[in-house]
Amino acid sequence: MSIVIVPGAEAAATVAPGHVETSAVRTGRVDVVGLGPAGRDWLTPQAHAALAAADHLVGYGPYLDRVPHNPRQHRHASDNRVESERAEFALDLALRGERVAVVSSGDPGVFAMASAVIEVAAEPRYAGVDVTVIPGLTAAQAVASQVGAPLGHDFATISLSDRLKPWEVVADRLDAAARADLVIAIYNPASRSRRTQVEDARAVLLRHRSADTPVVVGRAVGSDEQQITVTTLGELDVDAIDMRCLLIVGSSQTQVVDGPSGKRVFTPRRYPG
Amino acid sequence: MSIVIVPGAEAAATVAPGHVETSAVRTGRVDVVGLGPAGRDWLTPQAHAALAAADHLVGYGPYLDRVPHNPRQHRHASDNRVESERAEFALDLALRGERVAVVSSGDPGVFAMASAVIEVAAEPRYAGVDVTVIPGLTAAQAVASQVGAPLGHDFATISLSDRLKPWEVVADRLDAAARADLVIAIYNPASRSRRTQVEDARAVLLRHRSADTPVVVGRAVGSDEQQITVTTLGELDVDAIDMRCLLIVGSSQTQVVDGPSGKRVFTPRRYPG
Repeated sequence: MSIVIVPGAEAAATVAPGHVETSAVRTGRVDVVGLGPAGRDWLTPQAHAALAAADHLVGYGPYLDRVPHNPRQHRHASDNRVESERAEFALDLALRGERVAVVSSGDPGVFAMASAVIEVAAEPRYAGVDVTVIPGLTAAQAVASQVGAPLGHDFATISLSDRLKPWEVVADRLDAAARADLVIAIYNPASRSRRTQVEDARAVLLRHRSADTPVVVGRAVGSDEQQITVTTLGELDVDAIDMRCLLIVGSSQTQVVDGPSGKRVFTPRRYPG
Repeated sequence: MSIVIVPGAEAAATVAPGHVETSAVRTGRVDVVGLGPAGRDWLTPQAHAALAAADHLVGYGPYLDRVPHNPRQHRHASDNRVESERAEFALDLALRGERVAVVSSGDPGVFAMASAVIEVAAEPRYAGVDVTVIPGLTAAQAVASQVGAPLGHDFATISLSDRLKPWEVVADRLDAAARADLVIAIYNPASRSRRTQVEDARAVLLRHRSADTPVVVGRAVGSDEQQITVTTLGELDVDAIDMRCLLIVGSSQTQVVDGPSGKRVFTPRRYPG
């Protein structure tokens, strides 16, 4: 049993015998590619092949830096704002016949670039451009896997960022998820400028959850700087949360047990009643 | 850029020079491995390596069938019930020094084997057994990727099965998720014996969502028999839903647009307010 993926340049050069590719007949495309949370071990063969076949890589600089250099490819690094502009840039390249990979960390379909690309691609001028979304492991899955199975039963996935939605919507959703006793994976808990959301979220959650509810804090998961902390809602160190963190807040059923290399956390599939 | 994973037997045989492995010193372990929803393209290198290194494969028969045969390995197929018995069987093998892979479709941490293994491993007699959870792409991610990015914003992941939890809990969670305008990924919507849950779930969702809310039905995603249907909550064909299906129900913001090869569905990251 073996997987062998050939180097990017060769893969991209594979065309039917006798076929001469010209810019006139060539059709561009956009693949929105999930790199997973970190590292080669979590990169799917499908994502790897799409990256290798691309003529252009488009994305937030630190994500592009995770893709090994290929001299055949053009790289277009951006900051992580104005997703629609990045989407438009990629789609314009595809209109000119180029094969473009828009790279996202994690899964591009989860709080990432895929919805912006699909939305902009709906404009009539991009009607002929094929867009494929290539899923990747999410940060929530990666953090969960490092401690056991906290997402083993029903859960909600909620972003705390109020950059694109009002805080009232975030708070309502946290309240609903906590009342329904869902485990909650929290994305974008904080940044340098957003420093109050985690404390506010905790206050909402404590309406329905006890202070000893298990909380997993994963920081820079999968990287050399990975830190995984198992704590509780009451003892969570709010000031230590930054933009590289993802939080998993347990349900009433989530349990913490001892394992040979530290605490393990799981949510059983049974629910009493 | 290349990924080369060597054949299973060789990988497992890699030991330190001069090291002679005996059953007396050998420590067993259990890897709970996510195969992803289907196919080699979605199998991570980490999962591939864990499967290749295992002495024993344990799991539901149809999942084991997805792992290429290796004459060095023992296979232990089971039905898909009584997860704790399968977990115990795997942990007992590990206690005897064996390296065991418990295989799950999708992500073992999401409605699958990981929480059962972690729970049983907490029993004192398994105190020394190392358990690793190796994440995989979920069915929800795979279905979403086939139509665009319906999970692009906050969402809930809920199983309709009332085999291990009361239906009232399921209904309360659906109601809360619908009221909070979360996109909802629905696992285990139906089986041969469970035929009423999808209709009941729809009734709950229609309390808060309009009948023209987009619904994506993914069946056997990633397999040769894959079917993806984009419909609405009102027009959903309840009788066509079976145990190979996964449903994604949009929020009030989820949109359906035309693409060159069919309908695309996305949920924007912005929320009005």
